[in-house]
Amino acid sequence: VEYEPHAVKVSRFNEDALIARLTRNLPVAPDVRVGIGSDCAVIGQPRDKVWLVLKTDCVVESVHFLPGEKPERIGWKALCRAISDVAACGGVPRHALITLVVPCDYSVERLEGVYAGICKAARSFGVSVVGGETSRSTGGFFLNVALTGEVERKCCVSRTGGRAGDRLYVSGRLGGSMRGKHLDFTPRLDEARWLVTHYLPHAMMDISDGLAKDLPRLAAASKCGFVLNEEEIPKTRGCSLKDAMEDGEDFELLFAMSPKLASKLETAWKKKFPRVPLTCIGQFVRSSAPSTQLTYRGFDHFT
Amino acid sequence: VEYEPHAVKVSRFNEDALIARLTRNLPVAPDVRVGIGSDCAVIGQPRDKVWLVLKTDCVVESVHFLPGEKPERIGWKALCRAISDVAACGGVPRHALITLVVPCDYSVERLEGVYAGICKAARSFGVSVVGGETSRSTGGFFLNVALTGEVERKCCVSRTGGRAGDRLYVSGRLGGSMRGKHLDFTPRLDEARWLVTHYLPHAMMDISDGLAKDLPRLAAASKCGFVLNEEEIPKTRGCSLKDAMEDGEDFELLFAMSPKLASKLETAWKKKFPRVPLTCIGQFVRSSAPSTQLTYRGFDHFT
Repeated sequence: VEYEPHAVKVSRFNEDALIARLTRNLPVAPDVRVGIGSDCAVIGQPRDKVWLVLKTDCVVESVHFLPGEKPERIGWKALCRAISDVAACGGVPRHALITLVVPCDYSVERLEGVYAGICKAARSFGVSVVGGETSRSTGGFFLNVALTGEVERKCCVSRTGGRAGDRLYVSGRLGGSMRGKHLDFTPRLDEARWLVTHYLPHAMMDISDGLAKDLPRLAAASKCGFVLNEEEIPKTRGCSLKDAMEDGEDFELLFAMSPKLASKLETAWKKKFPRVPLTCIGQFVRSSAPSTQLTYRGFDHFT
Repeated sequence: VEYEPHAVKVSRFNEDALIARLTRNLPVAPDVRVGIGSDCAVIGQPRDKVWLVLKTDCVVESVHFLPGEKPERIGWKALCRAISDVAACGGVPRHALITLVVPCDYSVERLEGVYAGICKAARSFGVSVVGGETSRSTGGFFLNVALTGEVERKCCVSRTGGRAGDRLYVSGRLGGSMRGKHLDFTPRLDEARWLVTHYLPHAMMDISDGLAKDLPRLAAASKCGFVLNEEEIPKTRGCSLKDAMEDGEDFELLFAMSPKLASKLETAWKKKFPRVPLTCIGQFVRSSAPSTQLTYRGFDHFT
């Protein structure tokens, strides 16, 4: 469908600019602790001990997975993406609602497979699937996950709290997700919960669009510049620096940590998660200081 | 895309049967007060004074609206559908998350129009839009709304509490929604809140797929049969009985009320909502008693 041949197209905007433009006039309610522009929304009164975490996320056929993909993996990915975002806020995922938009000729066995993948992820990470919605699609297959979670006020992390001098860390290894990891990754829920209860990061997010896209987002939200030591970036075996910076869908944690806690954190992490590398890749600097100029771009839906 | 030419297709199932099949193995957590098969999920501990209401809902281009439709009306409809469901549970809507799945050649002005419609609905009904997700679409335009709400435990209504002898009521008039009402309807939030705080219905839902589809759902969930007085059904001007039974997207309230409260309710409603008709259209009977055999079908996405 060609909508309006002379109109300004969505493809003229990058995703962040598009969202900023669409949401510029939205009123913000007083109980919104973290709003638009973060991994999740966080709701609650300033003095509540526990806040509500809200996330919505979708996977789209031919964008996030191929039409012939194993259905269990589609379901796993759909729920785990949202779990990864709740984890990045320091939260514990709780209840999920699933929207399926399905072509009429879609196979019921495939849909059951998708649901089996959702169920497996739900069981693995303590989520209850409590409802959903089903609609016919006139195009491909879409799946939306709406996920709630809980976070203790003192454990809540967003993108905005980073400070100049903070060390920047990533979990795991980056790049090469399209070889399979984007469909069967493990959201870093255990790691994130351990972090926020032991060494509260100043700012945190998960890497979904590639470090080249997401690190500048974290820095901008924290009003910092950054220095990135490209040679330190932990690359998936066989991946180039470009892959590690741009592939996206790593679903690893990226966080800013007080330099005072750095060496303690590194020792404790190694003991707690011996199989998941933790790497210091740089640091935040004052926003007026020169930042590393990235030669890579990361993933964008529209440009 | 033809997925698997010999597989059982989604179109072999009606929507309820499909959902039942997909969700049959889902574990139910102990804090789920109302789960799959109702208008909303309701979460909380049995003794909590206020429960959390969760809803997800979508509108799909060429299914719920035409590609050339005025964008403000698409946004209004998308959020108001979900508000209608929260109202039908007795709840107050609170926070919304918006997922946009958009073709790259979609006009940004149109998207802004959709958001303006969402904002207008949000302001009208006290909802905060707190986040969302954006993805590229390879097919049409698709919009998902995830909405939270709150309901006092003593005001919470589901589909399951109806009893033999209850009077069945509908608000407003049914049929003809495709002439425009499906895009600019007013969710019956005020009416539903007044009902649950003054004359708590035993069971309630909103009519989205037509009375012919939704009344049997309410009866089945309440384990009742029903007698429907077809001549009593309030029809939109110019609509036939068939239209009123089948068109769907009325977004009117359908509820079961103790016969002891019926005459008081009717008098009080007329005074409170003089411009919204309230009509008794029949009653619940024992499930073993003969029910009215419907000659109409209502809307189904897949069959």
